[in-house]
Amino acid sequence: MGHNSIDFPAWLDDRVQHIESVLDQLLPPVTEAPASLHEAMRYAVLGGGKRVRAALVYAAGEATLQTSAPASAQEIGLDHAAAAVELIHAYSLIHDDLPCMDDDTLRRGRPTVHVRFNEATAMLAGDALQPLAFELLGLMPIAPALTVQATQLLARSAGSMGMVGGQAIDCESVGLELSAEQLQQMHSMKTGAMLEASVLLGGIVAGAGSSARQCLERYASAIGLAFQVVDDILDVTADTVTLGKTAGKDAAGNKPTYVSILGLDSSRELLHSLHAQAHEALLPLGPAGAQLAGIADYVVGRDR
Amino acid sequence: MGHNSIDFPAWLDDRVQHIESVLDQLLPPVTEAPASLHEAMRYAVLGGGKRVRAALVYAAGEATLQTSAPASAQEIGLDHAAAAVELIHAYSLIHDDLPCMDDDTLRRGRPTVHVRFNEATAMLAGDALQPLAFELLGLMPIAPALTVQATQLLARSAGSMGMVGGQAIDCESVGLELSAEQLQQMHSMKTGAMLEASVLLGGIVAGAGSSARQCLERYASAIGLAFQVVDDILDVTADTVTLGKTAGKDAAGNKPTYVSILGLDSSRELLHSLHAQAHEALLPLGPAGAQLAGIADYVVGRDR
Repeated sequence: MGHNSIDFPAWLDDRVQHIESVLDQLLPPVTEAPASLHEAMRYAVLGGGKRVRAALVYAAGEATLQTSAPASAQEIGLDHAAAAVELIHAYSLIHDDLPCMDDDTLRRGRPTVHVRFNEATAMLAGDALQPLAFELLGLMPIAPALTVQATQLLARSAGSMGMVGGQAIDCESVGLELSAEQLQQMHSMKTGAMLEASVLLGGIVAGAGSSARQCLERYASAIGLAFQVVDDILDVTADTVTLGKTAGKDAAGNKPTYVSILGLDSSRELLHSLHAQAHEALLPLGPAGAQLAGIADYVVGRDR
Repeated sequence: MGHNSIDFPAWLDDRVQHIESVLDQLLPPVTEAPASLHEAMRYAVLGGGKRVRAALVYAAGEATLQTSAPASAQEIGLDHAAAAVELIHAYSLIHDDLPCMDDDTLRRGRPTVHVRFNEATAMLAGDALQPLAFELLGLMPIAPALTVQATQLLARSAGSMGMVGGQAIDCESVGLELSAEQLQQMHSMKTGAMLEASVLLGGIVAGAGSSARQCLERYASAIGLAFQVVDDILDVTADTVTLGKTAGKDAAGNKPTYVSILGLDSSRELLHSLHAQAHEALLPLGPAGAQLAGIADYVVGRDR
């Protein structure tokens, strides 16, 4: 490992390139039947993306690494965990983009999966990415008890009390007035749960103890929320080309956002406060938390 | 356990009632947000059904039970594994019924989930049932190494090389001529993989050794195929009311079936041969395999 000695942009570049190649290797090849399903899965997953979730897994793993375990096993474990959270994220985007949901035709500057293939293939590609994530966790060469913990965490974070539950509340709330508290609850499930899971998975694979896990939890909850606040700000301030997806979509769809409820200035204030909370949570981890701190800065400063 | 001493219909009745109550307890309550998502999940899962997959888990568990482990832990483990396969089955039916797939409005004599709720809720209910299945496996009070095996098996069986892959091939093959071999490959993925997983999960939870697992595998592959042959026969011989779903749907949709490729008589001959194979596979298990034998008879003789 030992990425702590290099600067954050170089570290992030390295991790983003690394996870691309890990995902490429772990996804089923198109030479294996059913070819079009596998093609759609690869199209959705390998189409770029910020890889924030994978980076969080790696950074949290590096921040809490126990030197007692073999380094190669931990590296493979982190690769699988990072791939798993990216697969869950990719599946959620495929399904969110479908006509019965957000009906989006553009994602990361390319046609969405159901536009490029068809609706049935898009739904099935999402349906197949989800169990692949759990399969990859099961293949981590770490203590089975830790694998079970990781599986539980991913399952809860992806389910009706996590990501999918948040998505359901989001769908129900179109055209409704939400309080800032209700909005926060929705986003902490929809986006926060999987971002938080990414951080904690890194800690589980690294064998982090309970005090290190508590630091990760505090960091993760601040970052999870900050991520959504930035998304909402970008929806009104960025243009479609920079964003790689349709800008102004939430505003046009009458979806409640931080900006629509708090206004732009207060949303920016909230963001700065969450940013500070994330850095504070990392203090007990010392220099090992450098990459997590870098991700916090990156999430808050991103323009897409 | 000790259900071996009672006759098969009474055993099956008992297990079907038992899994209904297990599922009712393990599904999130509608009092928990998001209410409509949880309502849709419960509507889909608790709407009856033959519970063949759950019965296979219990029967395989009883057939291979190791008396060294505590009985209560094994019972809870089998309950969770049985619930997990029923949740995966229920999610697959919700998604199969959607307009972009089979566009079915009737299931088990009731409106399908997207008709009763809406398309977005139906898709999300399916998306949330899948991780719940993995969460339940993770909560089995058995050795973590066995839980990891069970998770791996469920993940592979539900994924692009299993159930979802078979579904994708099925979609692609509408209007095409399939050989009997291609048809068998498709069904062994689409339906067979999860039926087989159900049998093997029971063995894993019960701590079955490798020779017992081989018996279960042979039994499972015969039963998996037999199940689909019966489905295809019923599609042309049963009426909609008895079936509880639209009869003649596959024939009308120009979908290749065993009956359309082999004809009705040869399909029935194939069914009898698979039935015999299933019974033969059980011989080494002795009287403990009685309920698995009963399920084989039940699957072949069912009229819906």
